[in-house]
Order: sequence, then C-alpha cells, then structure tokens
Amino acid sequence: MVHIAVDAMGGDHAPAEIVAGAVNGARDLGIKVSLVGDPDAIKAELEKASPGDLIVDLIPASDVIRFNENPVKAVRSKPGASINVACRLVADGFADGVLTMGHTGAGLVSAKWFFGSIQGVERPAPIVPLLDLRKDLYLIDAGANTEVKPHNLLQFARMGAVYAQYTGGVNQPRIGLLSIGSEPNKGNKIVREAFALLEAAEDINFSGNIEGHDMLASDVNVLVCDGFVGNVLFKTIEGVIDSLLSQVEAILPKIPNLPSSLLKNHLDNLRTKNDYAAIGVAALLGLQRPVFIGHGRSKAVAVRNGLATAKRMITSNVLDVLRTRMEACI
Amino acid sequence: MVHIAVDAMGGDHAPAEIVAGAVNGARDLGIKVSLVGDPDAIKAELEKASPGDLIVDLIPASDVIRFNENPVKAVRSKPGASINVACRLVADGFADGVLTMGHTGAGLVSAKWFFGSIQGVERPAPIVPLLDLRKDLYLIDAGANTEVKPHNLLQFARMGAVYAQYTGGVNQPRIGLLSIGSEPNKGNKIVREAFALLEAAEDINFSGNIEGHDMLASDVNVLVCDGFVGNVLFKTIEGVIDSLLSQVEAILPKIPNLPSSLLKNHLDNLRTKNDYAAIGVAALLGLQRPVFIGHGRSKAVAVRNGLATAKRMITSNVLDVLRTRMEACI
Repeated sequence: MVHIAVDAMGGDHAPAEIVAGAVNGARDLGIKVSLVGDPDAIKAELEKASPGDLIVDLIPASDVIRFNENPVKAVRSKPGASINVACRLVADGFADGVLTMGHTGAGLVSAKWFFGSIQGVERPAPIVPLLDLRKDLYLIDAGANTEVKPHNLLQFARMGAVYAQYTGGVNQPRIGLLSIGSEPNKGNKIVREAFALLEAAEDINFSGNIEGHDMLASDVNVLVCDGFVGNVLFKTIEGVIDSLLSQVEAILPKIPNLPSSLLKNHLDNLRTKNDYAAIGVAALLGLQRPVFIGHGRSKAVAVRNGLATAKRMITSNVLDVLRTRMEACI
Repeated sequence: MVHIAVDAMGGDHAPAEIVAGAVNGARDLGIKVSLVGDPDAIKAELEKASPGDLIVDLIPASDVIRFNENPVKAVRSKPGASINVACRLVADGFADGVLTMGHTGAGLVSAKWFFGSIQGVERPAPIVPLLDLRKDLYLIDAGANTEVKPHNLLQFARMGAVYAQYTGGVNQPRIGLLSIGSEPNKGNKIVREAFALLEAAEDINFSGNIEGHDMLASDVNVLVCDGFVGNVLFKTIEGVIDSLLSQVEAILPKIPNLPSSLLKNHLDNLRTKNDYAAIGVAALLGLQRPVFIGHGRSKAVAVRNGLATAKRMITSNVLDVLRTRMEACI
C-alpha cells in the first residue's frame, strides 16, 4: 500500500484543510497517510474528518517553517519542523513520499538534506501537466530554479521525458524548449545555448523551440524552461482561465430562454477540470525519493488530488528509471 | 490629419492584407496612410481595395527585409528596404509614425538609425494592453529586449506609466513588477534588484511584485518584465484564450434546446475582443517618433486596428511628455 507522509502544518489553511484532504485521499485512493505536525491541532481536525477505519497515522512534530523564513536556515535550525519530520519518515523507509503545501524552498532543502538528489541531477525541478488544457504536456521547471545554466535545462528535459513516459503514459515524449520564436537563434542567451545542447543530445526527442501561443496546439509533451518563466507561465494560465470563464459566465444572463443550469454545470465542470486543485501538486523531480509540493493556498480538494498525483508517480516506479537514465548521462 | 507610413511589404501576408487593412484604416479612422513598398504589387492590391477618395499614398521602395535576416546587417545593407523608406518618411517629417508587421528587430534598428532614441532611454520597449481581459493593464516589454539590466526595467516602468496615463487615460497608473511571489526577495536576480530600484524611485507609483495568477485581478496598470518573459506571457494568454474558448464552444452541442446562435454570437464576440488583432500592434516606446509593430501573421483586421492604436498614441502627444520625463531622470 502506498504510504505518503503529509506535512500537516504547511500551507495557508493548515492544518484544517490539509487534514481534511488527507483523510479524503486515504479514503478515495486506498493509501496510507501519515499526518505530521502538532498532535493536538491535528487530532482536533481528525475528529471533524472522522476517518473511521482509514489508515491515517499521526506523527508528532514540534515545529513549523513559515513562508517568510530563509529555507536553508530554517531547515537546519528546526530539526523538529513538520517538513523535516516528514522527510525523515521517507528517508528512514517508513513512507514512500512526502507531500507539502508549505514553503517550497524548505521542502526542497529538507528533501536534499534527508535523502539527497539523484546522481547526475544538479538541480531538482518541479513538473506539472498544463491542466486539462493539455493533460499530456508537462511543464518543467514549474517554479523552483529562477537562475539556470543551459545544462540544467538539458537535465530538466531528460527528467521530463522520463516522467511523461513512465508516469504520464506518453509514448516517446517530444521535448519543446520554451522560447519567443521557432528559429534556433531566438530567445535569451541561456535558451539559445540550451537549444544547441538539446539538439545535440541523442537520448531525447527534441522538437525545437515552442512559443506561448503554440504550446497548447503543439504535439510536444515536455516544455522546458527556467523556474521563473515556468512559474509566471503556469500562474498566468490559471489567471486567464479564471478571468475568461467569468467573462463567459457573464454572458449567460443575456441569453433569453437559456436552459442555463445545464450550461452552468458544464462551465463549472470546465472550471473544476482546469483548476490546479485538480492536480494538486507538482512532482519535484531529481530527488532520491518522491516529493510533492503545492500552492500555499491549497484547500482540501487540492490535497486529496495531490495525493492522487503522488500515488500515480509512486506506483509508476519512475524514479528507478530516472536514476538509471540520469546516472548514464554523467 | 494623422499620417502613418505603413510598411506594405512586412509580414507573412504582405502586401495583400497590409494594403487591405490600411485602406480600411484610412476609411474608418479618417487618417492618411502612405503605403511603402513595391509599386506594382501595391497598385494591384489597391485596385482590389478600391480606396476611392481616401488619402492613400504609394511610396516606392525597392527592397524588403525578410524575417530570417540579421536586422542590423539588413537595415544597413538595404537602404531601399520598405521599413527604411517608411522610417525616413517619418524622420523627414512627412509622416507622424511608422507601422510594420515585418521583422521586429529590423523595425527597431531602422527606427534607431533614422530618428534615434529619446535621451535617457537605453532600450526602447514595446507596450501592449492585456487584450480585453484587462484593457487598462499594459505589459512592457512585450517582446523586444530578451536580456535586461535592472535599470532597464525601471525605465520600462517610467515609460509604461506615461503611456498608460497619456495614451491609455489611466489616472495615476500603478506599476507592478512581474515576479513569482509578492515578497521583495522573490524572483530572479535581475527582478530582485529591479524591485529595489522601483521602490526607491519617487516619480512612479510602485505596487510591488505581481504574480501571473493575480495580474488580471490586480489593480496595477503597468506590468514590467523583460522581453523574453513578456513575449512568453502575452503569447501564452493568446493561446489559452483560443484553447479555452474552443472548449466552451465544444459544450454547446451538448445542451438540448439551446438557443445556440445567440450564444455563439456572444462567444464569437468574446473571441474577437480578446484577439490581439483587436489591438493590432504594440507601440515601441522610447524612440523619438511613434513606431508600431505587430505579429508577422497579421491580417487586414490587425492592420486596420493597429492603425487605430497608432492614431490614439499619436493624437495623445505622449512622446512630448515621455521626452520630458525621461530626460529629467538622466
């Protein structure tokens, strides 16, 4: 049975929404969840969630890392922080992976501290599918590494390809490099240099540069960029979907005799499918164990769906392939 | 009467769509248009467009700069290129501004060559409103300068504020810096350093960092970023709108008894309003004369609407204010 250590104290709505989502996840997905954090606070929330016979453990942690803290300093100075205790559970072999809606940087630092990176990976990077718009297109780096070197982008491409194939089920995934024109000389310096590296790499299926307006209509499966651009891009997509669907909904009252409730249901469904909460988390690729990070503002539904994303990756055994592949490229 | 020199040879659909759009623009907007390019080709298109009594001049140009050419080399080696002849018309005082759907880099180089930059502006930058989603939010740099220094971003902020106020009619425009978190220490190195400069600048109204999912719901009027990120962001918005509206349209047949034609009209209207062709061009701010650049794939409607954008900027006399403001900051 898949067993996930959940940082119950991480996120704007912790522990209430985290506990509620974790209980739903354990129930719906048939997994075991260890909730890590303040025992009293978690117990109070667990009572509301009435987990019944579900396998939901409580692992006490005495401290918490806040969003405004320096991640390296906080991880090192707070051994009892919930994210540290959760990562140690995984490092010690009690759980298969960690999920946190808390401080992303702290999650990364803690994971590196407790179980380290895969050999050949200089910078672990988060990967997410582009919502329901293109479920088979994965964005990497979705928001961790704001400064990269060209060879980091090549490593992201390799990791993304393995993830798209082994967890995403995409056959022979195609790689696109996010840029501002299709020609190899378009982009900034790092991207232009990365283009040459990607083109020369024989172990990936490189399709060249991909532009913002083409990515959804393209046939690529992995979109490679630095974490600054990736974060802006992903959050922009979220914002545009929200804003545009509101504009569509504002049309409805203008149509006389509209059987509106049915249409409204379809639109609500479209909104739900394209909400990041439907995926819940990004998988942080390149670490020795599975790590999943989500928005700080996540609610229970994002936690529940994040656990589904986590279960999918863990059961796919993608990390074994990733280890072999990345070590072969050293 | 506003008089715009149009590069009739620039763009994927030149000269046919350029001429057709220019004629429509002259008719609808009451402006004078000089079409610059191959006389025979333009004449043939003009006959189809039947401009009648409209003030549409034909200014011969013997050469053209293609999208795959090096802009500096091409501008210097082809004095008779349509973009050069168009810029010279403006430099010599015959026309008020230049519009091109051709090679953006060549347009910038040619404009710099013929009339130069405003004192105090190191890098001219294109500005566009975020479509109909947020008409009063202007993105600068929308795609020209892929490598910037922090002080370039400060200059973009100043130019954007003047444009938003004097051309866009926004009272006391608020400036946001595009980043990946609201705290000053979020972003990449350049953005973090730019944050300090923007915060220290007393002549602008700085609102701090703005994230991708917040920009449309925020109250900022100018969104500052480098041209790589700006181009990715703007084109991503275009792609998401297109994809999402297609998803909405795909719902319609599923609703029984839907008065669908009316709803379809509203959706078509939403698509048209949010199409970049509704704006047509970006204004290239920081040059001594008005320069407007659009997508290479522009059709007649984008040219027509681009001329409206151009007329608005030219009649607002924003460049006089910009000159004073930027020179004062040297």
